[in-house]
Amino acid sequence: MNAQELPSADGVWTNLTLAPEACAPGSAALPDAALVVTEGHIAWLGPHTNLPAEYATLPRHDSQGALVTPGLVDCHTHLVYGGQRANEFALRLAGASYEDVARAGGGIVSSVRATRAASEDELLAQTAPRLQALLDEGVCAIEIKSGYGLSLEHERAQLRVARRLGEQFGVTVRTTFLGAHALPPEYAGRSQAYIDLVCQEMMPALAAEGLVDAVDVFCERIAFTLAETEQVFRAARALGLPVKLHAEQLSDMGGAALAARYGALSCDHIEHLSAEGIAAMRQAGTVAVLLPGAYYFLRDTHLPPIAALRAAGVPMAVSTDHNPGTSPALSLLLMMNMACTLFRLTVPEVLAGVTRHAAQALGLQHSHGSLAAGRPANFVLWPLHDAAELAYWLGHKPDCTIVRQGRVARTAGRG
Amino acid sequence: MNAQELPSADGVWTNLTLAPEACAPGSAALPDAALVVTEGHIAWLGPHTNLPAEYATLPRHDSQGALVTPGLVDCHTHLVYGGQRANEFALRLAGASYEDVARAGGGIVSSVRATRAASEDELLAQTAPRLQALLDEGVCAIEIKSGYGLSLEHERAQLRVARRLGEQFGVTVRTTFLGAHALPPEYAGRSQAYIDLVCQEMMPALAAEGLVDAVDVFCERIAFTLAETEQVFRAARALGLPVKLHAEQLSDMGGAALAARYGALSCDHIEHLSAEGIAAMRQAGTVAVLLPGAYYFLRDTHLPPIAALRAAGVPMAVSTDHNPGTSPALSLLLMMNMACTLFRLTVPEVLAGVTRHAAQALGLQHSHGSLAAGRPANFVLWPLHDAAELAYWLGHKPDCTIVRQGRVARTAGRG
Ligand SMILES: [Zn+2]
Ligand SMILES: [Zn+2]
Repeated sequence: MNAQELPSADGVWTNLTLAPEACAPGSAALPDAALVVTEGHIAWLGPHTNLPAEYATLPRHDSQGALVTPGLVDCHTHLVYGGQRANEFALRLAGASYEDVARAGGGIVSSVRATRAASEDELLAQTAPRLQALLDEGVCAIEIKSGYGLSLEHERAQLRVARRLGEQFGVTVRTTFLGAHALPPEYAGRSQAYIDLVCQEMMPALAAEGLVDAVDVFCERIAFTLAETEQVFRAARALGLPVKLHAEQLSDMGGAALAARYGALSCDHIEHLSAEGIAAMRQAGTVAVLLPGAYYFLRDTHLPPIAALRAAGVPMAVSTDHNPGTSPALSLLLMMNMACTLFRLTVPEVLAGVTRHAAQALGLQHSHGSLAAGRPANFVLWPLHDAAELAYWLGHKPDCTIVRQGRVARTAGRG
Repeated sequence: MNAQELPSADGVWTNLTLAPEACAPGSAALPDAALVVTEGHIAWLGPHTNLPAEYATLPRHDSQGALVTPGLVDCHTHLVYGGQRANEFALRLAGASYEDVARAGGGIVSSVRATRAASEDELLAQTAPRLQALLDEGVCAIEIKSGYGLSLEHERAQLRVARRLGEQFGVTVRTTFLGAHALPPEYAGRSQAYIDLVCQEMMPALAAEGLVDAVDVFCERIAFTLAETEQVFRAARALGLPVKLHAEQLSDMGGAALAARYGALSCDHIEHLSAEGIAAMRQAGTVAVLLPGAYYFLRDTHLPPIAALRAAGVPMAVSTDHNPGTSPALSLLLMMNMACTLFRLTVPEVLAGVTRHAAQALGLQHSHGSLAAGRPANFVLWPLHDAAELAYWLGHKPDCTIVRQGRVARTAGRG
């Protein structure tokens, strides 16, 4: 596969309905619309009757009444790793405790082991079908974190594979350095030494290689403390890198307020987010990234404070959190259903959650997540009558047409 | 599409791993296996080294190490209906009560209205992509219920469409007459008159037309009483038709014990099933059909008594319950994940649940649901290392090869 060989999307896309939230916050559905692509970018969109005469001679793509949304954005994934953990899933169901699983070599260390053992080419080959599954549902921009290497060499491999996937598939990839994901086994009992390594060696080296678009930390009782988190954030700030945080998933650590003080792009999970955290995020313009797949998979019962986030006007994004341990999710549409069903997001909220707000969580709000003239052509034509169907069906892979980076990456009816 | 034009699966399928539970209860995985298909039926299967010489000259299909399971069986669906109810989903999330939705024309009556308004061809056209979605995941036998027509004419249309779908797609379809699904609006306040119609006119006429493989009732406070259920069961028995029941979903009505007395094939939902119900089902050999999609979609919190069913040795099946109101599920693999995640079925249990036990719930245990010589060739080759992956990934559509009714219905890598 070579993304450069895909057909150009240039021309006039006619007979489509713009989905609610597609163009701006609160924008309504617009039927009988047209969208013009020139040189891989959106040149114009609006009611077909208003189509400027200068575009009349361009080739036409009849969209047959399809619903069009911006290309989806998956703003929180751990997509690159070696192996998978289905066996651990089976063991747990058969009654094994976490300790039993750990004794059997399971848990995050098994992913670290398999990731370190794989070559870059092997990691790429293992990750490619997972990325393809997400792209087949219209994902046009995706964040990919490191965090299963936990050494300079292996974190580098994960991030390099993420970059290569972006080039190979013709999709916008934002890389996030998550060296502070877990304590590697060789640093057991030496957390401070590992955080020093993350801040003083790994992060500067990887940033210098152009592999780091943002920096993340897993701030939790079972991971890193608030003080360690702040040390990582300071190092990121010194390098001019934006930060984000795995915050308040299992307990209220105060991570969100800290992250907001560092102008974080997003705080993610946030089941136990406090009112103070919400206020700080609002002030800082930090996005709340909701990860219902992990909530579901872990059978969590502590809901994130959706009503309070809504009342505060904190933008909410929805993502897969794809990872082999707690959210082996290969469908962003399923996450939309879970965000509605489990978290009670409304349909407009969940549409914005996988487009505009997800783009904002990646600092991509000026190029991705909504349809507007001047932006790269990233959009999806869905064979649906109602945008609510994107969240309503359970386990649906609609037969969509996907325009990604100005090229027709998938055509409905051709598989 | 015409199923008869699909390529024959006859020949020797080599280099495959038989999945656990594929051949018999408790059967282990068998690597380096081969499977012979002649005249559309399984002629032989076992370790490749034992392949009888008589098959040596047959054409070979190299399965490249794929995992093979029996064709999946979806034993409880309401797949044929007009319209969909995404708008109702959106309204509910926006805060509308059930009453608000009903006033806006929503609820089951909206599906009845849309089903009655559609021609048979329209119903077929609307249902076909839903069926295709299920078939693409390896479903080789499926039950389809009526119950949105609620008059002789419209129940007939649903069941005729179900039969036509079976022929058109080349898939085993078992039809279930569910006239006693809900009280049609024109019978409001006249439940007994409607049940009389179901028993005395609709059921005999539809059975005489060969449209009824089994009879089902929705026995619940919001639907039909135990006495009404028994009246339907007596009518079915008089016609020699097997029965099954939507039982104890919202409350313990005693429906399972009644169904067991009538030798029911299955009792379905059963979140509120009592110990007496379990004992009766065990005695009668009735299958417990678990429907985690509806449990999830309704945000139910009352778990079916899995441990007690397990202890009693009642066979447990897992199905989509596909319907537009409470389980718009288009993925049986997702239901496997939900059965494990939410109901804590083990991996062997869930494998049997979508194969052997689901076939038993349809009375198809002698032709479907396990791999054995003499059976029609219905099997799936999965590009997976571990059968647990079928349940582990969330929202995964593996690139599988599907042999259905002795024909290669889908080939991996060809979409
Ligand atoms: Zn994460
Ligand atoms: Zn049902």
